[in-house]
Amino acid sequence: MEKNAHSMVSQRNKQDLLNRMRRLEGQVRGITKMIEDDRYCVDILLQISASRAGLQKVGLSILDSHTRGCVTSAIKENRGDEMVDELIDVLDRFMK
Amino acid sequence: MEKNAHSMVSQRNKQDLLNRMRRLEGQVRGITKMIEDDRYCVDILLQISASRAGLQKVGLSILDSHTRGCVTSAIKENRGDEMVDELIDVLDRFMK
Amino acid sequence: MEKNAHSMVSQRNKQDLLNRMRRLEGQVRGITKMIEDDRYCVDILLQISASRAGLQKVGLSILDSHTRGCVTSAIKENRGDEMVDELIDVLDRFMK
Amino acid sequence: MEKNAHSMVSQRNKQDLLNRMRRLEGQVRGITKMIEDDRYCVDILLQISASRAGLQKVGLSILDSHTRGCVTSAIKENRGDEMVDELIDVLDRFMK
Repeated sequence: MEKNAHSMVSQRNKQDLLNRMRRLEGQVRGITKMIEDDRYCVDILLQISASRAGLQKVGLSILDSHTRGCVTSAIKENRGDEMVDELIDVLDRFMK
Repeated sequence: MEKNAHSMVSQRNKQDLLNRMRRLEGQVRGITKMIEDDRYCVDILLQISASRAGLQKVGLSILDSHTRGCVTSAIKENRGDEMVDELIDVLDRFMK
Repeated sequence: MEKNAHSMVSQRNKQDLLNRMRRLEGQVRGITKMIEDDRYCVDILLQISASRAGLQKVGLSILDSHTRGCVTSAIKENRGDEMVDELIDVLDRFMK
Repeated sequence: MEKNAHSMVSQRNKQDLLNRMRRLEGQVRGITKMIEDDRYCVDILLQISASRAGLQKVGLSILDSHTRGCVTSAIKENRGDEMVDELIDVLDRFMK
């Protein structure tokens, strides 16, 4: 049922990710509202911290699917090197 | 014109933060859409990375206002210690 | 007994920081040794992670002293702005 | 000439990593010295930041070898799942 052969996120995992993303959307809108309402800076900072952690978790889950899916397939078909280059490159950005 | 005495974000800075937050809201909704559309994992990861960096930037800007505003006032009124405790605590979370 | 007026790390805190740094020096030498001995990559990565976290903790403790010391003094003497600029700048690097 | 079958760091890459680690050892000792000499907090913080970034780079390079080596071998021998679990787990710690 995948529309895209590259996507290796299972339907179950996908629904979980979408639920988490909706919550994160709400959290991010909440931050905008807090700034609008001149809420206490430290409370806003904690909310920002929580949203960043939530995004990181979604990212890690996608990274997991990607490694298990695309990277694994590529390696089995002996075209893993390029895939690993790309993976390391995205990790480098992700770790910042 | 601040509704909240604790808030030390200037009106100009506030508008800039709100603009950046609206863009981030759109970016985060974009990530949900990418997952929904089974887009390529690495592209989603790069988008997550960009949103996290954007949130970090907003956080740093709020941290700046907070230190220049609340923390500075507290220190001048000799009640800075508690404020610095709170600041270090939020930095600790923020750095993760 | 500070040799340097800028330094606001108390003698007690300083000894604690020095002890932690000696342990970190040992940990970092340990990483070199692990690479030399062709130890398992994941074990090396965990050790690198631990050292980075240790350095972060030392940094946070110095940040605490700095804010309580130099930044507080500067603010009381109405020359806080420049100090906060510098602080935010170092936080920006530190958060990466 | 690998002493350990698990290690997939090439000899050339290994020498490069060892050189980088020696520099990092010096940098970390330098931080201890700066604290000892009551050097300016912000300068110490910048040095800590640089060492953390250096360790991250070594980690990323080991992660690269690990994925290209151990993980790739495991996947080809159909025992990749466990390896990817371990990889994601170490990434989770590493990203903090």
